[in-house]
Amino acid sequence: MNLEKYIANIPDFPEKGINFKDISPLLADGEALNYCVMKMVSFSKEADVILGPDARGFLFGTPVAAILSKPFVMVRKQKKLPGQVIQKEYLLEYGEKNVLEIQVNRIKMGQKVIIIDDVLATGGTTEAIIDLVESQGGKVIKVIFLLELLELEGAKKMDGIEVISLIKI
Amino acid sequence: MNLEKYIANIPDFPEKGINFKDISPLLADGEALNYCVMKMVSFSKEADVILGPDARGFLFGTPVAAILSKPFVMVRKQKKLPGQVIQKEYLLEYGEKNVLEIQVNRIKMGQKVIIIDDVLATGGTTEAIIDLVESQGGKVIKVIFLLELLELEGAKKMDGIEVISLIKI
Repeated sequence: MNLEKYIANIPDFPEKGINFKDISPLLADGEALNYCVMKMVSFSKEADVILGPDARGFLFGTPVAAILSKPFVMVRKQKKLPGQVIQKEYLLEYGEKNVLEIQVNRIKMGQKVIIIDDVLATGGTTEAIIDLVESQGGKVIKVIFLLELLELEGAKKMDGIEVISLIKI
Repeated sequence: MNLEKYIANIPDFPEKGINFKDISPLLADGEALNYCVMKMVSFSKEADVILGPDARGFLFGTPVAAILSKPFVMVRKQKKLPGQVIQKEYLLEYGEKNVLEIQVNRIKMGQKVIIIDDVLATGGTTEAIIDLVESQGGKVIKVIFLLELLELEGAKKMDGIEVISLIKI
């Protein structure tokens, strides 16, 4: 399936100079959505836990977890998750600071974790999530993306971790 | 399956006086997550399009759409969706204003739409989404929730639309 045609290129969004990749056309095509999710499922069978970041990581993380009957753990922006959380601050690709949180005790010591997200750009978000997982004693064995932006070289940040991207542009 | 035991009750979150229902334990149980998604799938077969709001509506909307190979359309907070959008302003249950957007032309005239979200509280968010769908010529035939908070009577706002909630408390 030619998936690239379902990704729209939006110049100057969210701000001037940023070339935004819009995955909405892919989500809006039922066959393409099913194809991508089932591909991700095929790569996720060895996971103990699936992690996905707020908000677009939820789009692919929960289908994979639900189909495989595996736990899904939300990674969220600050102050969204109740109870005891651990957090990690990092820089976004557009220069702002961001904070991500997960609830404590959702990941158990030694568990194999797969992170699923929509786009791999600079890799900053994924790197922060890997830190969160490791601080809980989990091991990130693989990261799966719908779309990888090759020129930003985000995969280089995933030292020793397998990176799978369904679309590379 | 007794689903209620997977919902955590968090007093005074996100602010004093609010009794937050945390669905994280349900997501973190692979069997419960699979069970809920497959229940929602069984109720969604007649849809042409599945809609889910940012962010927790993505958690259940995309699994259902992906499994049924149906289009999924994101409803997002302001300035998150690129391209031409239509928007709807409404009041949140905690008193603040919120704006939701969808991209134009994602819903076609006469299409049968099912909205999927995690929690039905006062129903304000769902009501706003129904307005957005109708402004595009779509027809909301059903709304599906993981959890309905009965005392807030949100279902009363869904005039003539079937409301399905997997858990009612």
